[in-house]
Amino acid sequence: MPPYPLDPADLTAQLIRCPSVTPAEGGAIALLETLLTDAGFTCTRVDRGGIANLYARWGQRGANRAFGFNGHTDVVPVGDAAAWTHDPFGADVVDGVMYGRGACDMKSGVAAFVAAAVDFVQDTPPDGAVIITITGDEEGEGKDGTIAILDWMAFNGERMTHCLVGEPTCPQEMGEMMKIGRRGSMTAHITATGVQGHSAYPHRAKNPLTAMVRLLARLEAEPLDRGTPHFDPSTLAITTIDCGNPANNVIPARATATVNIRFNDTHSGDTLSAWLRHEAEVVAEATGVEIGLKISISGESFLTPPGELSALVAQAVQAETGRKPVASTSGGTSDARFVKDHCPVVEFGLVGKTMHQVDERVDIAHIHTLKAIYGRILRDYFA
Amino acid sequence: MPPYPLDPADLTAQLIRCPSVTPAEGGAIALLETLLTDAGFTCTRVDRGGIANLYARWGQRGANRAFGFNGHTDVVPVGDAAAWTHDPFGADVVDGVMYGRGACDMKSGVAAFVAAAVDFVQDTPPDGAVIITITGDEEGEGKDGTIAILDWMAFNGERMTHCLVGEPTCPQEMGEMMKIGRRGSMTAHITATGVQGHSAYPHRAKNPLTAMVRLLARLEAEPLDRGTPHFDPSTLAITTIDCGNPANNVIPARATATVNIRFNDTHSGDTLSAWLRHEAEVVAEATGVEIGLKISISGESFLTPPGELSALVAQAVQAETGRKPVASTSGGTSDARFVKDHCPVVEFGLVGKTMHQVDERVDIAHIHTLKAIYGRILRDYFA
Repeated sequence: MPPYPLDPADLTAQLIRCPSVTPAEGGAIALLETLLTDAGFTCTRVDRGGIANLYARWGQRGANRAFGFNGHTDVVPVGDAAAWTHDPFGADVVDGVMYGRGACDMKSGVAAFVAAAVDFVQDTPPDGAVIITITGDEEGEGKDGTIAILDWMAFNGERMTHCLVGEPTCPQEMGEMMKIGRRGSMTAHITATGVQGHSAYPHRAKNPLTAMVRLLARLEAEPLDRGTPHFDPSTLAITTIDCGNPANNVIPARATATVNIRFNDTHSGDTLSAWLRHEAEVVAEATGVEIGLKISISGESFLTPPGELSALVAQAVQAETGRKPVASTSGGTSDARFVKDHCPVVEFGLVGKTMHQVDERVDIAHIHTLKAIYGRILRDYFA
Repeated sequence: MPPYPLDPADLTAQLIRCPSVTPAEGGAIALLETLLTDAGFTCTRVDRGGIANLYARWGQRGANRAFGFNGHTDVVPVGDAAAWTHDPFGADVVDGVMYGRGACDMKSGVAAFVAAAVDFVQDTPPDGAVIITITGDEEGEGKDGTIAILDWMAFNGERMTHCLVGEPTCPQEMGEMMKIGRRGSMTAHITATGVQGHSAYPHRAKNPLTAMVRLLARLEAEPLDRGTPHFDPSTLAITTIDCGNPANNVIPARATATVNIRFNDTHSGDTLSAWLRHEAEVVAEATGVEIGLKISISGESFLTPPGELSALVAQAVQAETGRKPVASTSGGTSDARFVKDHCPVVEFGLVGKTMHQVDERVDIAHIHTLKAIYGRILRDYFA
């Protein structure tokens, strides 16, 4: 057995000291595997494509109630190492604040739910299962991470009945926000191919930049929607336009651009793709410039409608922090987009404001609060 | 004395064999200096900033009538050398066609007016002066070329009363077009500086690409004008847009674009600059994105109104080719934009359709016709 009760701040520090910059395992998954095995969990490494993933279950396979936690131990790169005031892999503590890459995203979250689960099954062994899924591929491509675990679970008849993803969800204050869904995300790579020419004779050329500007201006002209009951308005951002023509007396032959769309449940990847293709055709016809679209849909929008799971989480957060969390669908994607195909899922975790930044850090008190919230969720779930 | 009458095709071949890729002199200016000196011209090298330039005068300084020719011996680079079917500096002749860089732009034109001038002063010494100005900096930056010669002329009291620039002016058929002016040309380098951010939260960022697309769409929305009696409509071409942001989840901080405007006498560099600045301000105000403009005016539009000089040239062209040349102001800039501040100037030369291309070439018969036209212009001018 690991020391009891398990200190989630100490476990966070141990994890921060594992240099698990995505896709490296860095010792983090192995550390958790040992700890959970010692605590009576059945652990299976579900590694795929060079990525380390861990599936850990306490209790019987196929239990009627099986509460799951999902998280990741991989972290984004350090960035400007010289700008850090603490070793990014040191877990230094100053005035109750712990520094390090992954301090909030999300080694602390993993430590909190692992500690809560280990204590819970020891204190009040539930009539059901507690499942922990941890990936080393959330900050990377994500194709051999949580998806690999869920594939393996489906194949082996392993099942969670509800799941909580421990990503940081609070913008500023501990407890203020949980997430019950996410907008979808898609990216369109646009290529405009015209006919090169001299800029003194634009009528003899077909300027791909004219077509690109017209197309992008059309895409930008109107909001995609005004938001829906659980979702913010969809957004479209032009993220780059490139041509690389150094000669101002030459109309170039080719230009590219990228557009990223975050969309709510008004749309789907398919309806937006059809819209993009239609707009491209209109502009291509008007300008004679060929317009190619390569569209990749990273995730459809999804929603776990407010219900048992979100109520359970909200009550636990309010009991431990005094704050009633807003049920939001804002923000970027997370692995909840994969879990939602398996079972109802919500996300709740720490204040994320320093994630991905230099001097990423976490209030140690918040890690303890988070463990308390997760522990309460487990007790209430199996009560 | 050089051989008489001077063969302009032979002289063209000699010049093509000089590898005078701008700004290199390549032996071309030296060859002409020797030839013209031998023919009784007073030659002065007006080199400046590493560029070779030649001023040659037959007759007295300050003559009441002093007809000038202007041209250049520098050429654009070979480009894709492997794609040439003949040595670009070989002056190979096949079926009456001579191949080489500068074959039409404009070693043939220089050869034709040098040959015409040498023969003319020999045959019928005029009451006046014949002036030949040749630069090695027309295809390059142009700041130490014809301008340097004109500066030197002003300083030394040298003067042309009328000037013909021997650039290729005929789009397809020999004799079909002369130029009596040019549109102006200006380039605006636009920099948009916003605030970087995550593409999931565009309202927290200020996307410079949104501003850039809106500005360019405004600039493109309406024609600048519908043309004037002697000018085509002004044109605006976006020649590049660049950002270089590889991350489709990031809104970039900065983007650049370049716009090239060719404008007629409806506008001036100043009025168009004011318009660009106004449009940039409107978009900057609406988007919160800073927009910087760096505007460079390569030349104002100019016109030598139809009169003695254009009539003289048109009559000579018609007499030698049977075609009445259109008096056009179309096309890119030429050194006529500098000469026009010195004296009335028109341009007439060969068919330019292979200029700047692989396998640039010239019909040898056209070189002889061109010499005949230039010779007739001189005779009529001094008659």
